[in-house]
Amino acid sequence: MLRYLPLLLVPLSLGMQALGAGPVWVFLTGAAAVAVLADWVRRGTEGLAAHAGPAIGGLLNVSFGSVAELILALFVLTSGQAAVVQAQLTGSILATTLLGLGLAMLVGGLGRDRQCFNRANAGLLSTLLTLLMIALLLPAVFDLTERTTVSPSAARITDEEVSLGLAAVLLALYAANLVYTLVTHRDVFSREEEAGEGGAQWSVARSLAVMVAGTAIIAWEAELVSGALEATAQTLGLSTVFLGVILLAVVGTAADLFAAVVFARQDRMSLAFSICIGSAIQVALVLAPLLVIISWFLGTPMTLVFTSPLGLFAIAGAAFVVRAVAADGESTWFEGLVLVGVYIMLAIGFFFVGPA
Amino acid sequence: MLRYLPLLLVPLSLGMQALGAGPVWVFLTGAAAVAVLADWVRRGTEGLAAHAGPAIGGLLNVSFGSVAELILALFVLTSGQAAVVQAQLTGSILATTLLGLGLAMLVGGLGRDRQCFNRANAGLLSTLLTLLMIALLLPAVFDLTERTTVSPSAARITDEEVSLGLAAVLLALYAANLVYTLVTHRDVFSREEEAGEGGAQWSVARSLAVMVAGTAIIAWEAELVSGALEATAQTLGLSTVFLGVILLAVVGTAADLFAAVVFARQDRMSLAFSICIGSAIQVALVLAPLLVIISWFLGTPMTLVFTSPLGLFAIAGAAFVVRAVAADGESTWFEGLVLVGVYIMLAIGFFFVGPA
Amino acid sequence: MLRYLPLLLVPLSLGMQALGAGPVWVFLTGAAAVAVLADWVRRGTEGLAAHAGPAIGGLLNVSFGSVAELILALFVLTSGQAAVVQAQLTGSILATTLLGLGLAMLVGGLGRDRQCFNRANAGLLSTLLTLLMIALLLPAVFDLTERTTVSPSAARITDEEVSLGLAAVLLALYAANLVYTLVTHRDVFSREEEAGEGGAQWSVARSLAVMVAGTAIIAWEAELVSGALEATAQTLGLSTVFLGVILLAVVGTAADLFAAVVFARQDRMSLAFSICIGSAIQVALVLAPLLVIISWFLGTPMTLVFTSPLGLFAIAGAAFVVRAVAADGESTWFEGLVLVGVYIMLAIGFFFVGPA
Repeated sequence: MLRYLPLLLVPLSLGMQALGAGPVWVFLTGAAAVAVLADWVRRGTEGLAAHAGPAIGGLLNVSFGSVAELILALFVLTSGQAAVVQAQLTGSILATTLLGLGLAMLVGGLGRDRQCFNRANAGLLSTLLTLLMIALLLPAVFDLTERTTVSPSAARITDEEVSLGLAAVLLALYAANLVYTLVTHRDVFSREEEAGEGGAQWSVARSLAVMVAGTAIIAWEAELVSGALEATAQTLGLSTVFLGVILLAVVGTAADLFAAVVFARQDRMSLAFSICIGSAIQVALVLAPLLVIISWFLGTPMTLVFTSPLGLFAIAGAAFVVRAVAADGESTWFEGLVLVGVYIMLAIGFFFVGPA
Repeated sequence: MLRYLPLLLVPLSLGMQALGAGPVWVFLTGAAAVAVLADWVRRGTEGLAAHAGPAIGGLLNVSFGSVAELILALFVLTSGQAAVVQAQLTGSILATTLLGLGLAMLVGGLGRDRQCFNRANAGLLSTLLTLLMIALLLPAVFDLTERTTVSPSAARITDEEVSLGLAAVLLALYAANLVYTLVTHRDVFSREEEAGEGGAQWSVARSLAVMVAGTAIIAWEAELVSGALEATAQTLGLSTVFLGVILLAVVGTAADLFAAVVFARQDRMSLAFSICIGSAIQVALVLAPLLVIISWFLGTPMTLVFTSPLGLFAIAGAAFVVRAVAADGESTWFEGLVLVGVYIMLAIGFFFVGPA
Repeated sequence: MLRYLPLLLVPLSLGMQALGAGPVWVFLTGAAAVAVLADWVRRGTEGLAAHAGPAIGGLLNVSFGSVAELILALFVLTSGQAAVVQAQLTGSILATTLLGLGLAMLVGGLGRDRQCFNRANAGLLSTLLTLLMIALLLPAVFDLTERTTVSPSAARITDEEVSLGLAAVLLALYAANLVYTLVTHRDVFSREEEAGEGGAQWSVARSLAVMVAGTAIIAWEAELVSGALEATAQTLGLSTVFLGVILLAVVGTAADLFAAVVFARQDRMSLAFSICIGSAIQVALVLAPLLVIISWFLGTPMTLVFTSPLGLFAIAGAAFVVRAVAADGESTWFEGLVLVGVYIMLAIGFFFVGPA
């Protein structure tokens, strides 16, 4: 019964909106409801995956893993706030790599001398993280180079072309990565089974029903959240960028963060590492290019030109510090604390940027 | 007989020029002829090296390895296009580290589970690559710092002084590296013998004749190529920077790229790795400082201040992604694909910069 | 007797000042006296530490390790030259990581095939170095982001707030690191005993007396040095930033540099590595945040916004090249030379910045 309790957030947030409560309450309850629903969709996906073979199952798991974040981002995007979507993408990467992995290492390492994780997997994920750092920084560097020679409007159009080109390359690399981890090198990357208490034993029908219904309600809630975003920011005296980079990002990745900490405490650090870094890679390798392409079809193009120096620095910093921590295939509580410390330092930076 | 066939490109390109063909044809056939001749000069060098001891032989091999690139760069430089030379240097580093190593890992890894390479050597080369990244980025950072306080013309003069100073340090480190790999630590770095089908059995006279004649014809062709460069760029609607960073660079390193892929397919990944990264190091540690010093004597000083943010970012990105891929001393086809993917993304960036 | 000889620098520098000698002589003798006194204070600390348990002893050693640098920085700061203090902090990091470690590897590696050091320790220190690179670069990136939207004076105030916030996080991480290395993971990090010829056998009274007297005289000398700084720079035709980043920094870290080279020559590379990188970490994790907080109380706030692009680049470059060299847990003379080469290249850059 207890596991159904968080679902009460859905009627609560809808009630808030209907009764004309303040935008802060609508925003917070709606965001929490999205986080809860994302976990249910994940369980439905796992249920369906359990009935498919391992290859198709793995494909399902990675494809629907970010559906909540995608829907949330699309609603924020269509309400004309591309900068907030970029902040949310940046924040998702920071939340999973620094906060999630850091908390997992910290909580998992307390009372233990050290925890080990699969080095082959950690190496692949680190390499992909470096690739993604380059992919996400490149458009901003291109834009900087371009603006020294051409007019801003001309630069804007080539920014879109470059972003579409990079999005295509990223999606192609993602497809190749699926072939790599699910087909040619399946033995190396066969993930430790997650003992799912929820979805793994569900029937196909139940899994599908939960996935469809959950996704639909997420869309409903996402509309509330994106609508209340600006008023919430004004009321709280925060910038919309800070809300996006910290709050929306933690909401979108809450299920992953929670799972990683639980697994780390059970001394299953390889799994916690895969969940956190895998989620960050999912964001940059799939979510970002999909948003570029979908937004282009919607007529409100979002480029990959991340304009905030602080955001670009944060992505690069996260990639470097994760590489440093992961290099030896071992973790301790202090390494976790360093990751959390870097997250807090970046959050301080984002807090002070914008309206004081 | 077949190996003499590509030499027909030399009369072909000279004929194109004599008959007044379009500059695009002169440029393309001339560039291809340079690539073919570079391979012959390399064979002549190997032949001479086989008659010397291992230390002198190694010295010969590394010294004449980039003679074609040096001549090509000097002709482009004296025609007043320092930016194209910088683009060519940047492009050579990208072509060998990302495209060459990536293709080698991709082609070598297909159908194989993994390929191993010498970690001691990979570690040294990675360290040097990091050093060179710092050396090539430093003058641009210096220039940026300097311009906040002094006039552009004063900055220009100190840029030249700084570049000369750095060039001296780089050449000194290169000399020390030769002592290190050929004298004090020869056992560690004794390269797997390349079973040369061409030059290794040549006589001293034949080797010398091929080296001298080849170098002379390269100079002739290089003059054609640099002369046709600007008209070619206009005809194709490309920027001269794009031609330099992609086309001239691939021409100058074609022999290395080809050799690396062949050796990787034979599962000799250590050798492929040495060729690719060694070639990039050669460019930055020898070619770039030599061009700075020679150009200063010629009265058309080229500084090490790489002004394109995209070029600087590309060099740093290549260094990081190679380090990430090389860290574990193993490679798979997917790691190769990631390198090629990064190269394509950077090429997209360079394509869209400049005249649309 | 011989060990008391350098102490003659103290009366010498005070005499220079009293007799009205040129500022260059006051500056040079005073700076040398600070370096000598710093070594005595260090011996006093070791003497006291030997009487305490290992945990308290370790705490004492790391806490008083930078007292000379702190006093010197405070005097320069109160004479209104925050830029010189930032240069000194930058220079201390460069001097220990590049010059000190490089000379140690170079001198220690001559005539030896390779030297090994403790990989667990090297890994932790590398991770901390990456963290500190992020912490020191973040405020400058924040400042850059902030200035695109608000006025310079508003940016200045938030710069101070951000710096104070980061300083608090850094000091908290430092405290956690002490718990980590001195309590929970003491076995892993128990340092090889330094066979102290000086302080280790001193009585508590003698140790305390040396510490107090030494620190007091350092303060006196530091006032002379900071007072003569500007006149010295003008006389020598150098910038005060160059004096801070090279001369003051080498003075402040001279004892560490010397110890590291001596231990490396004795083939105790783990200890040399710990001294050099530990000293750099001490500067960024303790000294910099302390200066931010103390300067705020003094009413002459120093922020962590390092404004020199060259300085920021130097810190990042040092972190990367140390990581590259330390990755394999081994060192050779050539790796040492590369570190020294990077230091020389950066010094060339700092030399040419500013008044020609």
